[in-house]
Amino acid sequence: QNSLLSATGTTVFTVMSALAVQHGAINLGQGFPEQEGPADVVKAAADALLDNRNQYPPLTGLPELRQAVAEANRRFYGLEIDPASEVVVTSGATEALTAALMAVVDPGDEVVLIEPLYDTYLPVVRLLGATAKLVRLSPPKWELPRAELAAAFGPKTKAILLNTPMNPAGKVFTAAELAFIADLVERHDCYAICDEVYEHLTFDGWRHIPLMTLPGMRERCLRIGSAGKTFSLTGWKVGYITCDRSLAANVAKAHQNLTFTTPPNLQRAVAFGLAKEDSYFTELADDLARKRDRLAAGLRGLGFGVLPAQGSYFITADFRPLGFTGDDVAFCRHITEAAKVTAIPVSAFYAGPDAPTHYARFAFCKTDAVLDEALSRLAAWK
Amino acid sequence: QNSLLSATGTTVFTVMSALAVQHGAINLGQGFPEQEGPADVVKAAADALLDNRNQYPPLTGLPELRQAVAEANRRFYGLEIDPASEVVVTSGATEALTAALMAVVDPGDEVVLIEPLYDTYLPVVRLLGATAKLVRLSPPKWELPRAELAAAFGPKTKAILLNTPMNPAGKVFTAAELAFIADLVERHDCYAICDEVYEHLTFDGWRHIPLMTLPGMRERCLRIGSAGKTFSLTGWKVGYITCDRSLAANVAKAHQNLTFTTPPNLQRAVAFGLAKEDSYFTELADDLARKRDRLAAGLRGLGFGVLPAQGSYFITADFRPLGFTGDDVAFCRHITEAAKVTAIPVSAFYAGPDAPTHYARFAFCKTDAVLDEALSRLAAWK
Ligand SMILES: CSCCC(=O)C(=O)O
Ligand SMILES: CSCCC(=O)C(=O)O
Repeated sequence: QNSLLSATGTTVFTVMSALAVQHGAINLGQGFPEQEGPADVVKAAADALLDNRNQYPPLTGLPELRQAVAEANRRFYGLEIDPASEVVVTSGATEALTAALMAVVDPGDEVVLIEPLYDTYLPVVRLLGATAKLVRLSPPKWELPRAELAAAFGPKTKAILLNTPMNPAGKVFTAAELAFIADLVERHDCYAICDEVYEHLTFDGWRHIPLMTLPGMRERCLRIGSAGKTFSLTGWKVGYITCDRSLAANVAKAHQNLTFTTPPNLQRAVAFGLAKEDSYFTELADDLARKRDRLAAGLRGLGFGVLPAQGSYFITADFRPLGFTGDDVAFCRHITEAAKVTAIPVSAFYAGPDAPTHYARFAFCKTDAVLDEALSRLAAWK
Repeated sequence: QNSLLSATGTTVFTVMSALAVQHGAINLGQGFPEQEGPADVVKAAADALLDNRNQYPPLTGLPELRQAVAEANRRFYGLEIDPASEVVVTSGATEALTAALMAVVDPGDEVVLIEPLYDTYLPVVRLLGATAKLVRLSPPKWELPRAELAAAFGPKTKAILLNTPMNPAGKVFTAAELAFIADLVERHDCYAICDEVYEHLTFDGWRHIPLMTLPGMRERCLRIGSAGKTFSLTGWKVGYITCDRSLAANVAKAHQNLTFTTPPNLQRAVAFGLAKEDSYFTELADDLARKRDRLAAGLRGLGFGVLPAQGSYFITADFRPLGFTGDDVAFCRHITEAAKVTAIPVSAFYAGPDAPTHYARFAFCKTDAVLDEALSRLAAWK
């Protein structure tokens, strides 16, 4: 059996979700919204099923969804994208990440990864025979260590994988940080794989800036979006990669070997969703910001050291002020069992040694009632 | 960019389907049914959408679908499968193939592949850093060359990939052939990845036998099924891997890195479909056998040398009797343009040199009207 996979654990999201079920805990671990996405988008998917849209769609996606992705790129970011040759629809952002890496990386290449990182990045880089160069952002400030980032690039660097808005940090990279990264990408003549699944989930006036919009980056970025996150339908597994046509051909060939296509009825519904007016997107973010505030205030009231979050579904919180002396894995197991509330240990997002071990990640993409119940369970436990 | 993918062509199915659209040709190329799958299965998928089944299902699949897959294994093949630990649901059989290979193969391993082969097998083996050992079956008899197969196994062999019923050959491997393969797998202490997507599409009393049912094979086989093929809903992209629990953990980790999960509403509908009574499965096969006979008789009437097909969606036909002197690629392009009927060149299923170049593959999973119209177009062209 494959030794890399044998040595990898099952994803922390599955482990903690199973533990939550086992203990009847409220699951503020895995990032899925409590409320379903827009009813009209769901209905569009059901209508498309009954309308007999059930055979293979084109390899790179339904034309109407590629068109909608191109239009969203123009509307939100001013990017001019050719829907025929610069969009590849995938079976979720996880496949998009793997396809983008597979499309550009050769064995022996180096890929720069930034910790904290989503847990498929590193295994996929290694399965492709490439080497990861890790650069670390640490709580509480999650500052980009520029000198270390620059040092991680070298003659073998083929790509950097950048996640903004960033899970679990809730960090939205600034224009200055992105300019610094763009300069490295250009100087080292490499690519940037941009995991932007939380692109529409930013708060307090923070705006997501795709690296692809920076000078010189149009032809170097593979920008990944997620219908699951944008429409609160995480089970649908519809993602999309936007990239220059010079890259899209290889991305399509990777997709061909990974899933080949994505269910056409879901694609049609996502195309419908992406055409929604601006108010849908702003209300989605505003609603999440309110939930973040509700959970953050509650956790602060309990004594947690809650870090700011400018985007995503997540806040991270230092639990030491509560007097818990174990590490984050012990803490997350403990509150699942004792308080019946589940969170994710932040150390799970670090691959290197000496990860921070006193933060837990809480998902706030839940109903107010669920957030309040979680807070009162934590209060009762404390 | 990845040099292996750069050197690979876009899949022949996409190329020929696009050519068919361009020329207004009847598409007997890519294997998708003309008629949609069972209305009650489609309705179950729509109901599940509206019933708010739209967030991440468990990593290895909805419990009800894993249960249904286990029950189908018992019903059709007498296999006892634990639904909790021996089934992994994937986003289609393409992902299942890649996940199964990824789960067992290490860089430097050898994988035995049998030509004719589906066009993701070879690139995926190579992307994983493994080496393919090709063994060739040739028309018109598609006989298994036992000595060559035995010679392809060696100390580095990690797996054989076996497709039965076989695309495009329409061959159903016999019990004797399977016993020969099982013996090699056992003697070389390796695995068998069994692409059995056409398991229910066999004709004339031929029965599909999973290699997994042979002595010693229970713990060595990764058996792949496809809801797309079993329910004539190829766009749904729901597949499943059945394998021993000692293998399923690594398969799940591969799946975690490829797509993570598969849409829950489609999973629920497939679970419903797999519980259909036996008559559904026999009628599906009987109906296809009639279509095969209809197309085969028509092509024979036109002069084609039509080979027998014991299973799958496809028949292969020698076009030399018609006086066409070009190769199969030229022939398939020519009839698309001149007759407005599209087929797939059989040489596309061969990776090695000196492939057979005078056969075209025709899909018969179409309505009688479409088959008849294709035949009359070919008659008019001839
Ligand atoms: C695909 S499971 C993980 C969901 C997610 O993005 C997260 O919880 O971080
Ligand atoms: C996934 S496109 C190819 C469909 C198919 O199985 C075939 O036509 O051989």
